[in-house]
Amino acid sequence: MAEHAPVDLLVVGSVAYDTVETPTETAERILGGSGSFFSVSSAHFCDPGVVAVVGDDFAAEHEALLRDTGVDLSGLQHETGRTFFWRGRYSENLVSRESLATELGVFAEFRPQVPERYTRVPFLFLANIAPELQLRVLDQVEQPAFIGLDTMDFWINGDFENLKKVMARVNAVFINDEESELCTGERNVTKAAKILHSMGPEVVVIKRGEHGALMFTKGDVFYAPAFPLDNVKDPTGAGDTFAGGFMGYLASKNDLSKATMRQAMLVGTVMASFAVQDFSLDGLIRAEKKEILKRYEALRKLTATEPLSL
Amino acid sequence: MAEHAPVDLLVVGSVAYDTVETPTETAERILGGSGSFFSVSSAHFCDPGVVAVVGDDFAAEHEALLRDTGVDLSGLQHETGRTFFWRGRYSENLVSRESLATELGVFAEFRPQVPERYTRVPFLFLANIAPELQLRVLDQVEQPAFIGLDTMDFWINGDFENLKKVMARVNAVFINDEESELCTGERNVTKAAKILHSMGPEVVVIKRGEHGALMFTKGDVFYAPAFPLDNVKDPTGAGDTFAGGFMGYLASKNDLSKATMRQAMLVGTVMASFAVQDFSLDGLIRAEKKEILKRYEALRKLTATEPLSL
Repeated sequence: MAEHAPVDLLVVGSVAYDTVETPTETAERILGGSGSFFSVSSAHFCDPGVVAVVGDDFAAEHEALLRDTGVDLSGLQHETGRTFFWRGRYSENLVSRESLATELGVFAEFRPQVPERYTRVPFLFLANIAPELQLRVLDQVEQPAFIGLDTMDFWINGDFENLKKVMARVNAVFINDEESELCTGERNVTKAAKILHSMGPEVVVIKRGEHGALMFTKGDVFYAPAFPLDNVKDPTGAGDTFAGGFMGYLASKNDLSKATMRQAMLVGTVMASFAVQDFSLDGLIRAEKKEILKRYEALRKLTATEPLSL
Repeated sequence: MAEHAPVDLLVVGSVAYDTVETPTETAERILGGSGSFFSVSSAHFCDPGVVAVVGDDFAAEHEALLRDTGVDLSGLQHETGRTFFWRGRYSENLVSRESLATELGVFAEFRPQVPERYTRVPFLFLANIAPELQLRVLDQVEQPAFIGLDTMDFWINGDFENLKKVMARVNAVFINDEESELCTGERNVTKAAKILHSMGPEVVVIKRGEHGALMFTKGDVFYAPAFPLDNVKDPTGAGDTFAGGFMGYLASKNDLSKATMRQAMLVGTVMASFAVQDFSLDGLIRAEKKEILKRYEALRKLTATEPLSL
């Protein structure tokens, strides 16, 4: 893909190096970050661009890898210093993890600059960065057709005022069940979704890891089960990959009907299932169209039932 | 229903009194027990009978209540002493609970006696009682077409030898995710299901509470989402109610095809959703056919999607 092909989905997030320790293996300084997982996932469906920052230690091969999967890098800022680095260790069953190191490097001074050619992008995703920076991004684009948002406990606790301002300006929020409870004070997801709707987004996606994800739109609920896997290797990036599949599919259809958003939920689930089967972006990059379609159908079959007559 | 109409589903379990404390309310000495929830749930679909024991404190009105919902009580043993009593307290969000009192009463000496007229029953459910007693029941019936089993951590830890003997003789096991892990040493449900299959049952149902339930049959997986509710009052009996709906529906169809078992998973989910909206059997008894069909369709719609083309 040429550097300056049209871009229909923009993500603002991180491009980073991760060292991931699982119970069986450690992978050192592998390519990660929300912007990477999101854009590579979405590139299976549309033409994404990424706004992020990397340091002078960022390898040319990783830049080439992102570009080769179809990600436009004209918004990738290069600064003097180190690329964001995270080191984490997963528990025995890969369900919980602890952060062993977080070195912000050049990310500490990240001021997202949306290139001129991205300002009319129809689909925008604000990955998990400071709400203040998310607001700055919103001020740099003309009203996109659809804006998605991710956040985390750190910002809910640390800058809820700005986060609320962001929430009021987006169409969809992607949040996990713990963050949803933290945001709303409600553990019951049906009640929590109502509160989140009232904060702005008409689409509320509550992610529950191995238990799938729920999408609440006004007057409608959709449940996407997780893809059953018995060989998860590294859950890092699953949430961003999910959102990338979801938004990438929407952008490819340029359609916001409920039926298409339901499909997008399964597409996101399928992409996340590929991502967690290997380290870094490896499983995601390997996923072929045929395999994506196959897992999508398997997911549909997982919940298929006949009507009832009594 | 006359006392001696034919019975197509037999449950052996407990008929008990519960005192349930929720964060907002306490209900004293209400009718409960696995046999009660299971049989009343199944009576919406088929003609169940219950083998259980009660003490001389068991109220005639409760016996009438069970009978009036269509439960055959010719296997209800009356002994001198107190009826099984349990007192429990639920946490703030109704997700966890602690047992404050367990008084076995006449249940301590319970030796299930299957009446002669039940011995050729086609569907049998062994609710959560001692594996030794479950074996005793199996020895009293001619081979039923379909046997379901429930158990709990207490027996997995305390009498795994006898539990394995029961497992080897049943068609389906209903187990929650924690019990499944305890039984198999595997947290991953796909791997755990394979181990449980190898122990005997060709149908493995792993219940995950608010996250729904998975059914593994050899070569097939089915996912039933939980019914989204924002007004859960008392989760007591949800598992037995689920199993009662599942087995009651199977018995009514007298069909063990995968399509029917998938329907049975949703029927179980629907019945559990009614049970948890009130104390004791109240929500379950109130559930009308029209409402059952409506919730069943709502559950189907919750996961309905269009095929994908890329």
